Amino acid sequence: MLSTLIELERLKRLDRTGWVLRGFPNGTESVAAHSFGVSVTAMLLADELERQGVTVDVEKVLRISLLHDWAEARVGDMPRTATMYFGAEARKQAETAAFHDLTKPIEQVDARYASLYHEYEERNSLEARLVKAADVIDLLVEALALERAGGRGLDEFWEVAENPQLQLEGAAKQIVEDLLQTLLKARAEILSRPHC
Amino acid sequence: MLSTLIELERLKRLDRTGWVLRGFPNGTESVAAHSFGVSVTAMLLADELERQGVTVDVEKVLRISLLHDWAEARVGDMPRTATMYFGAEARKQAETAAFHDLTKPIEQVDARYASLYHEYEERNSLEARLVKAADVIDLLVEALALERAGGRGLDEFWEVAENPQLQLEGAAKQIVEDLLQTLLKARAEILSRPHC
Amino acid sequence: MLSTLIELERLKRLDRTGWVLRGFPNGTESVAAHSFGVSVTAMLLADELERQGVTVDVEKVLRISLLHDWAEARVGDMPRTATMYFGAEARKQAETAAFHDLTKPIEQVDARYASLYHEYEERNSLEARLVKAADVIDLLVEALALERAGGRGLDEFWEVAENPQLQLEGAAKQIVEDLLQTLLKARAEILSRPHC
Amino acid sequence: MLSTLIELERLKRLDRTGWVLRGFPNGTESVAAHSFGVSVTAMLLADELERQGVTVDVEKVLRISLLHDWAEARVGDMPRTATMYFGAEARKQAETAAFHDLTKPIEQVDARYASLYHEYEERNSLEARLVKAADVIDLLVEALALERAGGRGLDEFWEVAENPQLQLEGAAKQIVEDLLQTLLKARAEILSRPHC
Amino acid sequence: MLSTLIELERLKRLDRTGWVLRGFPNGTESVAAHSFGVSVTAMLLADELERQGVTVDVEKVLRISLLHDWAEARVGDMPRTATMYFGAEARKQAETAAFHDLTKPIEQVDARYASLYHEYEERNSLEARLVKAADVIDLLVEALALERAGGRGLDEFWEVAENPQLQLEGAAKQIVEDLLQTLLKARAEILSRPHC
Amino acid sequence: MLSTLIELERLKRLDRTGWVLRGFPNGTESVAAHSFGVSVTAMLLADELERQGVTVDVEKVLRISLLHDWAEARVGDMPRTATMYFGAEARKQAETAAFHDLTKPIEQVDARYASLYHEYEERNSLEARLVKAADVIDLLVEALALERAGGRGLDEFWEVAENPQLQLEGAAKQIVEDLLQTLLKARAEILSRPHC
Repeated sequence: MLSTLIELERLKRLDRTGWVLRGFPNGTESVAAHSFGVSVTAMLLADELERQGVTVDVEKVLRISLLHDWAEARVGDMPRTATMYFGAEARKQAETAAFHDLTKPIEQVDARYASLYHEYEERNSLEARLVKAADVIDLLVEALALERAGGRGLDEFWEVAENPQLQLEGAAKQIVEDLLQTLLKARAEILSRPHC
Repeated sequence: MLSTLIELERLKRLDRTGWVLRGFPNGTESVAAHSFGVSVTAMLLADELERQGVTVDVEKVLRISLLHDWAEARVGDMPRTATMYFGAEARKQAETAAFHDLTKPIEQVDARYASLYHEYEERNSLEARLVKAADVIDLLVEALALERAGGRGLDEFWEVAENPQLQLEGAAKQIVEDLLQTLLKARAEILSRPHC
Repeated sequence: MLSTLIELERLKRLDRTGWVLRGFPNGTESVAAHSFGVSVTAMLLADELERQGVTVDVEKVLRISLLHDWAEARVGDMPRTATMYFGAEARKQAETAAFHDLTKPIEQVDARYASLYHEYEERNSLEARLVKAADVIDLLVEALALERAGGRGLDEFWEVAENPQLQLEGAAKQIVEDLLQTLLKARAEILSRPHC
Repeated sequence: MLSTLIELERLKRLDRTGWVLRGFPNGTESVAAHSFGVSVTAMLLADELERQGVTVDVEKVLRISLLHDWAEARVGDMPRTATMYFGAEARKQAETAAFHDLTKPIEQVDARYASLYHEYEERNSLEARLVKAADVIDLLVEALALERAGGRGLDEFWEVAENPQLQLEGAAKQIVEDLLQTLLKARAEILSRPHC
Repeated sequence: MLSTLIELERLKRLDRTGWVLRGFPNGTESVAAHSFGVSVTAMLLADELERQGVTVDVEKVLRISLLHDWAEARVGDMPRTATMYFGAEARKQAETAAFHDLTKPIEQVDARYASLYHEYEERNSLEARLVKAADVIDLLVEALALERAGGRGLDEFWEVAENPQLQLEGAAKQIVEDLLQTLLKARAEILSRPHC
Repeated sequence: MLSTLIELERLKRLDRTGWVLRGFPNGTESVAAHSFGVSVTAMLLADELERQGVTVDVEKVLRISLLHDWAEARVGDMPRTATMYFGAEARKQAETAAFHDLTKPIEQVDARYASLYHEYEERNSLEARLVKAADVIDLLVEALALERAGGRGLDEFWEVAENPQLQLEGAAKQIVEDLLQTLLKARAEILSRPHC
């Protein structure tokens, strides 16, 4: 178990390249910090969904949130353009292989982790899609924080909020879209201040 | 929900003061990155425990792991010496109050979160004690990473590994102590290298 | 004497949490750097006051400036919200106790330091109040520098400049208020630039 | 031309992941800083070679040195393990495609750049192999600097110095191996100091 | 050769003080990263010039670009105001002496390097003047990146773009001025965005 | 007064180049943080001296400590080697001129500051020499902190502790030398630990 933990510890220092490539300083956000944000967001989303009467496997939501970026400890945090050049399929395969090798030392449970990882990659359950929604929301919450502190040049990240393609339906869709709208409004307010 | 997420985002940048006060550079580890490490560690511990036939409420383990440090978004990451001066009881009260205010905007589920937070503070369940064990283990995994990279002066953190007081029993106790022993051995190996 | 100096050295790396919690990068300003700014500001204020014929104990002003944040080496740089939860009185007591322990090794002069610290905490002399004014001014000079470099989201810090409650009178009041007005004007100029 | 320069500017902030994944702080070395080191090293190697009577196309050496890492502005600085999962061939193809797109805006000379990039990837000239040698040497000079400052855990990087496979011959081989031996000796000296 | 490389490695960490003194965080740009930017820019400028039929010694351009800031490894990155107090002549002499000492260990080629350095200092060739132009352009490309990310307060750097005094003529003058105009336009576009 | 404060604020971010050039990360210590350390050290030294019956003008000691590095806001933190190339005399003149211009806006007291600065530069009083001793001691306290955290390669800084040439006499000499010996002992203890 320790060898896996030691490798995952590296995510605490690994920069999310998106900010760095847009002119923000090193250390703006680590992959581990982002994974924390995704997990917390997913938990709140799932709880709100349950409150509205929809059944969600919250344990699964949290497990997927926590492990969805583990492969980056071996593959790095590839910028979006990298995917373009490798192809989404090759990237998925490489990350899946990295994930498997990383979890191999946790024998007897590794198959379960692999299955959760696969579920996320395929977005083939409500839980997986909720985590993807949380991934997007956490990105925008971070963008909002940077913009509040004066950061600019992040418009492209916000486009997804206008037209999220998260394959959600019913209450889940509503909750996520409401949250995205609140985010857009919070952003508009920040940017419209006399001294934005 | 957004106001809570915005506050929690601050944990991504909040330094764990322990490293900074011991001469390590700013940005060594954020509270959010640590919370991620604790959550992942707790998940692996719980899964191993289940594998050995012990029933654990993994969802609860993950919920507690994710929320146990939220109060720091308002109270800061207090160094150990601070607790000495405020008193453990006052600190617990202040953090509990901060936690409540932070989760107040997530109406209807906030009571549940408060209860989980209370459970952790009181260590009155296997799940709460597992998270505390994960908290200690993640600290040592980080210390190990820093020492592998040449960092020194962290001996006091390792003392807990020799004599953990985690109120665990049976399989849980065994798993955690085995992991701590493996950590101590990994450390000894690093420090005994010809050019430590 | 050395043990005290070693502890105070920690202030060189301890982040002022105010900036970090508002989205600025780690390392924006250390407590030691702020203490330097306060001391320099207090010296200039005191000299201007003396020039206008008011008697000030400048040595005392400088001593108080230099030592007023020492307790943070043990208690950390608590965010404003932390004070809310602990209560101003408890915070004062904790910091005073930390200050005493920190200065205990400098026997025979520690009582004098304790008395200066107490004087600052109580604001019961012109000198103590001048240091508090310098504390506010240095905060705003730093905020101004961050805003000049594009930083935003610091409005709340500026509110104090509009309505400082520093218990100063006569020439001291005039000098400080003039400086605050000049700061506000410098800020307005920065924010009104075509490309603020 | 400007769009290419703007993209390459990103390399100034992009961390070399190798250090970060081994526990060193963000900002330890940027890709741009490394490229500078490689270019300077390659220039000195080429000049020494010429001094010994071997003809080298120094202009080509410098061009290759400067451009050999440009693709990372789009693909990121992939850790060694990433290559394992994508396959060396896929990585080469992705980086080549990224390089082409990046240089497309510099019409009329882009073909020439593509050819130099290809030459480096194939190591099919003395000049290309010299740059590869410089790449290795700059890595070790950086490792040496980190170790001199107390950094540890970099042994694996030094293995290449013992058995470099750089396809060099004659004087070039001799010069590079001598330099690697001097590096190893400098390292041994650092590590053997009483207080290494 | 190694001792020179070891000293030059220091440029990878040496901050360009211009940004730091204007309120940007430490680590914004290293001297080595800037030298890389200058070299790449100079290469593109020279290639465009050749394409237009002007003969340029590109090898010389690249050599000068790479070595023009080496003296800073011993003298530091002096802010503009420092030159004012030391006098431009004294600064040139000090840097030249530092450059000589730094390259002394690379016997037999050091005279050639000294001559290139002198050529740059005197701007007495097209190649030297092209590198100076690249030095200015790289500064503005970095400023643009910082402004795109929300940075402000850099107006004074842009003044040079309006009135470059680079002693260039003919095609070289045209190419550089066109590039500066494109930079100014790119900047204007950034600053005119609704939420600059 | 504000323009002077704004310029001095820059010292909060200006790196002490000594650490950076020796392989430590940016942000290790700012000039402002060092000035704070010097001021505090000087205050403790002066108080101990007074306790032993020697008369010291503590106000003057503190004033000199606070202002002795102001010139660096305009001249930068020059590495030791820089002084070699400019000459100690030229450096002193440049820094003195920078100091004068920096304090010119604080009319009517600037002459007094100039006189204190001159006194420090000439070391022609007990107070000036005490500040110089504090400057050395603060450097070593910082070095000690870095070494405790695993930093190495700082031996040359410690040589001064063996043979300080601080022109002190009597009790002052004794106090400073005792403190330096305690520092050397503390260092020896750190370096002799089993896992230094």
